[in-house]
Amino acid sequence: MDYLTILGVVAGALTTSSFIPQIIKIIKTRSAKDVSLVMFIIISFGISLWLVYGILKNDFPIMIANAVTLVFNLTILFLKYK
Amino acid sequence: MDYLTILGVVAGALTTSSFIPQIIKIIKTRSAKDVSLVMFIIISFGISLWLVYGILKNDFPIMIANAVTLVFNLTILFLKYK
Repeated sequence: MDYLTILGVVAGALTTSSFIPQIIKIIKTRSAKDVSLVMFIIISFGISLWLVYGILKNDFPIMIANAVTLVFNLTILFLKYK
Repeated sequence: MDYLTILGVVAGALTTSSFIPQIIKIIKTRSAKDVSLVMFIIISFGISLWLVYGILKNDFPIMIANAVTLVFNLTILFLKYK
């Protein structure tokens, strides 16, 4: 892996894992009142497009980061709706 | 602009603008109790690295999307702390 790919993977690990504390917070407090539903709907669409962009550009960090982030965002949407 | 750049710009417009409803929600309700501070700290670091990645790769959509998203995330962090 070249240094640029490593940078992308680290960036992706951060932006992707950032959603985990939000998931834990919602599960712990059983509240997502202040969390914006619109935000997570729009971001899920956007992340899906980034995923396609990464695949078409054959950009590994973009691909993997957005695939995992999409799963986390759909989890938050599910928790918000529950 | 080729179709791939347009796809990236649309993806970026979505993921970037997704933070606006969260900003509006916090300002309107004057509450960000359920919003995870840790999430927005980690994501701000990650987005900063994506910005560097976009600059080094000379990838326009990655660059512009992460520059604007960083501003929105710092705004949410500021509101959360206030």
